[in-house]
Amino acid sequence: MPVMSAEVQGLPVTPAPATGPYESVPPASRFADLPDGFVLHRGGMLDGGRVAYETMGRLAPQRDNVIVILPGLSADAHVASHDDDPTPGWWEHMVGPRKPIDTDVWFVVCVNSLGSCRGSSGPASLSPKTGRPYGLTFPALSLEDVADGAAHVVRSLGIERVACVVGTSMGGMVSLAFVERHPDLARAHVSISAGLHSPPFAIATRSLQREVVRNDPEWRGGAYWPHGFPLTGMRTARKLGLITYRSAEEWGHRFGRRRLPAPGSSDGFGPEFEIEAYVQANADRFVERFDPNCYLYLSRAIDWFDAEDSSTRSTRGHTLESALVLGVRSDLLFPLDLQSQVAAHLRGLGARVAFQTLDSDKGHDAFLVDCAAFGAPIARFLEHLPS
Amino acid sequence: MPVMSAEVQGLPVTPAPATGPYESVPPASRFADLPDGFVLHRGGMLDGGRVAYETMGRLAPQRDNVIVILPGLSADAHVASHDDDPTPGWWEHMVGPRKPIDTDVWFVVCVNSLGSCRGSSGPASLSPKTGRPYGLTFPALSLEDVADGAAHVVRSLGIERVACVVGTSMGGMVSLAFVERHPDLARAHVSISAGLHSPPFAIATRSLQREVVRNDPEWRGGAYWPHGFPLTGMRTARKLGLITYRSAEEWGHRFGRRRLPAPGSSDGFGPEFEIEAYVQANADRFVERFDPNCYLYLSRAIDWFDAEDSSTRSTRGHTLESALVLGVRSDLLFPLDLQSQVAAHLRGLGARVAFQTLDSDKGHDAFLVDCAAFGAPIARFLEHLPS
Repeated sequence: MPVMSAEVQGLPVTPAPATGPYESVPPASRFADLPDGFVLHRGGMLDGGRVAYETMGRLAPQRDNVIVILPGLSADAHVASHDDDPTPGWWEHMVGPRKPIDTDVWFVVCVNSLGSCRGSSGPASLSPKTGRPYGLTFPALSLEDVADGAAHVVRSLGIERVACVVGTSMGGMVSLAFVERHPDLARAHVSISAGLHSPPFAIATRSLQREVVRNDPEWRGGAYWPHGFPLTGMRTARKLGLITYRSAEEWGHRFGRRRLPAPGSSDGFGPEFEIEAYVQANADRFVERFDPNCYLYLSRAIDWFDAEDSSTRSTRGHTLESALVLGVRSDLLFPLDLQSQVAAHLRGLGARVAFQTLDSDKGHDAFLVDCAAFGAPIARFLEHLPS
Repeated sequence: MPVMSAEVQGLPVTPAPATGPYESVPPASRFADLPDGFVLHRGGMLDGGRVAYETMGRLAPQRDNVIVILPGLSADAHVASHDDDPTPGWWEHMVGPRKPIDTDVWFVVCVNSLGSCRGSSGPASLSPKTGRPYGLTFPALSLEDVADGAAHVVRSLGIERVACVVGTSMGGMVSLAFVERHPDLARAHVSISAGLHSPPFAIATRSLQREVVRNDPEWRGGAYWPHGFPLTGMRTARKLGLITYRSAEEWGHRFGRRRLPAPGSSDGFGPEFEIEAYVQANADRFVERFDPNCYLYLSRAIDWFDAEDSSTRSTRGHTLESALVLGVRSDLLFPLDLQSQVAAHLRGLGARVAFQTLDSDKGHDAFLVDCAAFGAPIARFLEHLPS
């Protein structure tokens, strides 16, 4: 294990856990053990659970320069390259020294979602009881649990107050649960391309994604390990995802109707257009990286989530001071009216809220690819956070 | 066979053909035989081909009151109820006596697309050579061929000039091919939610729909008959279609996050929201009605089509006098910029073109459900057609 900055500062470190066959854990991950009997939002219980995270930057002596990043469904805790893992992270252009989320200033903690297969406990990790992947025996997971896992990481680092929680996509929903369930933990929040809940279009899309995975005979009712892997179902689910993550407009500019040099299959129905090969290549990359059952659990959790559900809402007073809500006009999954609901909701918690819509044509995924558009308002917001 | 209005008038009638096991032919269908050796746009040849159609209203003695309707991918020739088939058609509120397309005035010919399984020759119909369904031995089909089939129907009825060709969705593309390839045949055109070609978003969507059908083991490389039917693949394809045919906005109003009374499956991932049950029910209805290979052929033909392709364009002078282009702002598959391209294209042919955008939230399918919004401008346009 490489030496990590937080370790140097005497923060607690736990050893890397044994991982399941379909888990893939970024090398600079750190781990916070959940207490045994960790109770989940829908009633299940988790023993021997853990949450993976990475840190960047230096924790100030007053522990008041903490930014927590809560990622989307498929992202891991490796948000950007740093000394302990120089490979580019999923938000490489956003986080680092002198980047919009400046690690010369902030101590960044990026948390891998509970339920994921990138280091935190989930359906792909080994059940301490059986030594085999949990699969569908993993208890039903909600985004409230993902938020509790992240809060546990923060507290395990001896941090009592987070300067800002930044959540992207699903992570934005997790942030809302984080703020509701741990109302004294966050001073500020940046919500990016998220919503208070999923509208029926997004539910229909995710439901179909889950269905194609479950319809793949290789899914085997969730017990594919060690006999197989629902590759076709996962590939289809990802393609469907990609169609809704991007935008027709961007693809129009980027691919038009350009043809592939040679037809792609013998039955006469294979790829002929560049867009088809692009979608295929993206799906091929994804299926190598994500466990199907984890995908099902997190996808379902997104559909379940409703920030306005009374069981989610805190009865305690909120101490959220300010928030920035960013949305993109071309987002099909979380359209702008959802973002404006998030802004109104956060205002209802007593926060000063800036709501900014971005004119990107990159759709839901814009925050991953249009870093300039997102970086400027985020940097400005963080600069003006009261210390 | 019931007595049909056109038959009464002495127009040619051919007997109903023997149909394949997955063909389903509306009872009032009439048939026009294609000449043997009918050459297809991509080089194939069809012997013993036929095109199914229905007629409504009375052909004027001068044969100058003809409206041809060219439908979308899955629609048949039964556009609306009439004496010979009182069941509601796919555009029931649009076509009939005193309706926007008024059959007291117009003689309406609705043509089932060549390649479809609703009466015209296609992969589901019986090959005269083998007596078995063509399957993938049916020659590669283009929308140009569908247009030629429709033109053949018109001419077989002794009609030399059509007052107006009305095309919806894929039928709008077929109409463009009809106008290009038979430039003396149509005086006017109504284009509804169509485009000159498919943008990459629509290609990616259709490509994925075809892929899930082909990935279903029951597709058996297209040779499912008589051993099975790719039900799962077709259901998935239809669900994906529905997600792109409608709009997030409409579903938001209509379904919100309403739950089903009871969870839908034992593995914990079944339908929980009304939108999921709605999509499922729609898909179940569709798969009973459409042959998978026909679906693949027509879907591919849409992606191939490009009205600006030189092989499609006519070198002869156009005689199209006027056109109405209708599009819907919430259409994901054929967004408004495509509709405006259609308008420009038709202007380039010398027609007077009215381009009207409708503020419906019903997405691509709006023309099927928002009949009031579409009916008024269509009725107005037809009323002012020069006679």
